[in-house]
Parts: sequence; C-alpha cells; structure tokens
Amino acid sequence: MDPKDLERLSAIPLFSDLSTDTLRELTNGAFLQRFPSETVLCRQGELPNFLHVMLEGSVQLTATSLDGRETVVEILKPVDAFMPAAVLANKPYLISAKVVDAARIVLLPAQALRDQIARDPQLSLAIIASLARQYRGMLRQVKDLKLRTSTQRLGCYLLALGEEAGGNGAVELPHDKRLIAARLGMTPESLSRAFSALRKMGMEVHGNRVVLKDAERLREYCIPDRLIDSPEPDIKIGAA
Amino acid sequence: MDPKDLERLSAIPLFSDLSTDTLRELTNGAFLQRFPSETVLCRQGELPNFLHVMLEGSVQLTATSLDGRETVVEILKPVDAFMPAAVLANKPYLISAKVVDAARIVLLPAQALRDQIARDPQLSLAIIASLARQYRGMLRQVKDLKLRTSTQRLGCYLLALGEEAGGNGAVELPHDKRLIAARLGMTPESLSRAFSALRKMGMEVHGNRVVLKDAERLREYCIPDRLIDSPEPDIKIGAA
Repeated sequence: MDPKDLERLSAIPLFSDLSTDTLRELTNGAFLQRFPSETVLCRQGELPNFLHVMLEGSVQLTATSLDGRETVVEILKPVDAFMPAAVLANKPYLISAKVVDAARIVLLPAQALRDQIARDPQLSLAIIASLARQYRGMLRQVKDLKLRTSTQRLGCYLLALGEEAGGNGAVELPHDKRLIAARLGMTPESLSRAFSALRKMGMEVHGNRVVLKDAERLREYCIPDRLIDSPEPDIKIGAA
Repeated sequence: MDPKDLERLSAIPLFSDLSTDTLRELTNGAFLQRFPSETVLCRQGELPNFLHVMLEGSVQLTATSLDGRETVVEILKPVDAFMPAAVLANKPYLISAKVVDAARIVLLPAQALRDQIARDPQLSLAIIASLARQYRGMLRQVKDLKLRTSTQRLGCYLLALGEEAGGNGAVELPHDKRLIAARLGMTPESLSRAFSALRKMGMEVHGNRVVLKDAERLREYCIPDRLIDSPEPDIKIGAA
C-alpha cells in the first residue's frame, strides 16, 4: 500500500490507536482495490481470507436461502469493516457482500489480523468497539422487524433519512426501491403498499424524492425510537 | 463469592483463560444471587451497572416499543453473559432481561470489567469470542425473520429442537406457546395458524409434546439451513 492510503487507513477508528508496528504487520500483504458496482466481495458459506475495510462507495450484505430467496441484511456506508466476527472466529460467512456503488476497499489478510490481535491490546479494544457497534446494529434491526409493521418501518426509515438530511422535510432516497424494500424486510409490493399508506398521511413521493409534509403526523403513527433508529458511531472501549 | 462459586465461574469459556489476578479483580465486588421467575434484571434504556453471567435457569431478552408492544429477542440458556456490548460500550441497554425459570446469576461490576479489559489481553480475546458469537446469533435471527414465512420459522425451530433431543422425532416444547410465538416474531394467533399448517404435513401436537411424524416432508417445506439453525458454542479467538 502506498503511504497516502496507509495514512488514510490509520485515521479510521478501527486503526487509529494502533502502534506503527501493528499497523505495518497488519498491512503487510494487504492491498487496496477499486471494485465496480455488482462485484461480489465475499460469499455466504465460505471461510474468510480477508477483513474488508471500505473507504469509499457502498456495499450491501445479502443473505440467501437454500431455495434461492434473497434479502438484504445491511447497506454499509464508509468507513466500515466487514465481517470482523467471521474473520476472527474463522467461521463461514453467514452473508455475502456485494458492491452497490463503486467502492475502494482495503483487504487485510485474515491471518495477520488473528495474529496481531493476540499481540496488541489496542487492536483488541478497537475490535471490541467494532463488534459491539455491529451487534447493537443487528439488535436494533431485530427490534425494527419484530415491533413494527411494514408501514411503520418505512416511515421511521424516511424520518431518520430526513433528520440526517437536516430536517427540512425533503428526503432523497439513497438507493433504488427494490434495495430499500429488501433492507426493510419487505417485498417490492409491500413497499408500494407502505408508500401508499404514508401518502394518506400527507407524504409526497416524486420519483426518488420524498417530501414529509406532516412529519408530526408521521411520527405519531410510526413512533420513531432512538433506541432503534439512532446509529452509534462513537463507541469507544477502555478510554473512559 | 465463595470458593466453590468462584471455581464454577472460572470454568466457563468467558473466564477460563484468565489469570488468577484478573479473575480476583473482576470478582471483587461481584455477587452471586438466585432470582425467582419474573424478576427484571435490567431494563431497556438504562445504563448498565453489571455484566450478568447466568449459571443456571433461563432468561428472556425482551424489547418494548414506545407504545407498549413487546417482543422477545432471545431466550438465554446457561452459561451465558448479557449484555457485554452495552456494558463495555457503556451505552443504554437496547432490551430488558427477565428471568423465565428461576436463575443463579453472577453480577460483575461493569467498571471492573471495563478496567480489566484494558489490562488483560486474554480477557479481551474472550470478550471478542463472546461478542462474535452473539453478533452471529443476531444475524442468524435477522436471516430467519427476513427469509422465512412464519410456518417455515416454526418448522425449523421444531426440527432444531428435535435434533437437540436426539432425533427420535418427539419434541418437548421448552417454553409456553406465548413465549415461543414472541421469540419467533409472531402473534399467538399466527403461531396457532403455523401449527395448523404443520399439522397438515403430518406433525402431531399433544399439549407441550410435538411429534414430527414425517420429518422429511417438514424439512422439504421448511428448508432448514445450518447457516441459520446451528448455534456455534465453540468460538475461540487467537488460539488457532
């Protein structure tokens, strides 16, 4: 890896507290690569050879049933690492990862990570932070799936996008509707029905643009909850 | 804690590789207690004061929506620790924990765990193993919820119980049906419908006892998948 990329890597939360030695050992044999949309980066059922660290772009984590049904477990934004749990446990991937928007990704050899983690306590703490964040993300999703109707799920998703966008009530859908439906655990048909139901509460949809005319009424119906809808990028272990 | 309990604790995977010093520091201020059924051990939204390690009994992890709907995220069997992610990140619990069957639980002070983890690399590795296992458990549940119908979910649950029981086709339901419905993400009414659907495939239900007369037909319909249905108790980090 060239010095500029190495600097980039050493700035991300997972690696920012590491010694130069650990970082050198980890990135020895690592490479950074651009991947076009649709590239499959790792496959459900296979043993991991690399920890993937996405610096730019977006990646979807997809699960497939044995009879070929497919769903989307998560859509990752940079910077994120996948899948540390499988890599460290040396267990088969439970999901596949596919590039959505052309991505720049660092591939760190799995064995180097497993070796270094036993040597550098700072690396362990960073990995614990990453796993805790990802565990809590998955738990939020289980709550989202089990406590809400499809319409509430879509409404809370749009309200969260609205807050991210600054709260003026206009939201640009970040992905096509098929991908959003899969991420929210619905068929495209259920998503259409959920959009229709929300339209009756004064929401407007113009192609990829959604206007939340009456966010108050939406909130009342969909019941957003910070324990489900607010991500936690700031988890830090042992630095209290 | 008395020496016998300490010995018990030091035998569980989370603590088995720790030095005597670390174990003493961790258990300094810890206590072991019996809790009757229905005791609420920790509450969604609160900051954690303890890591709970259950030695005997069973505990349900429950999520509640702001309008009072409730679901069951997980039913824990001994030995298990909850909730290391919240404790280590020092973030609010995303779920509550309630005793199902009278339980013996060690309460380890959260701050002691946070202090020791920065000092003992073996503890970090044990925590990483625990978090990786729990993350993968949550991911399996997301797949179960998103890829399967209610009937398939119940069928795979019963088939897994059947295998655990030794595979002679008879299964004793380990919990009441209301709890099983919540764990599988259904209403009690949907659970009844799912049982009816499975009865048409030759399954018999006598009270709490289920006989899988035609497991082959059940498997064909419900499509069990080891990447969803097989737990992984044996995750070990750094001891390759």
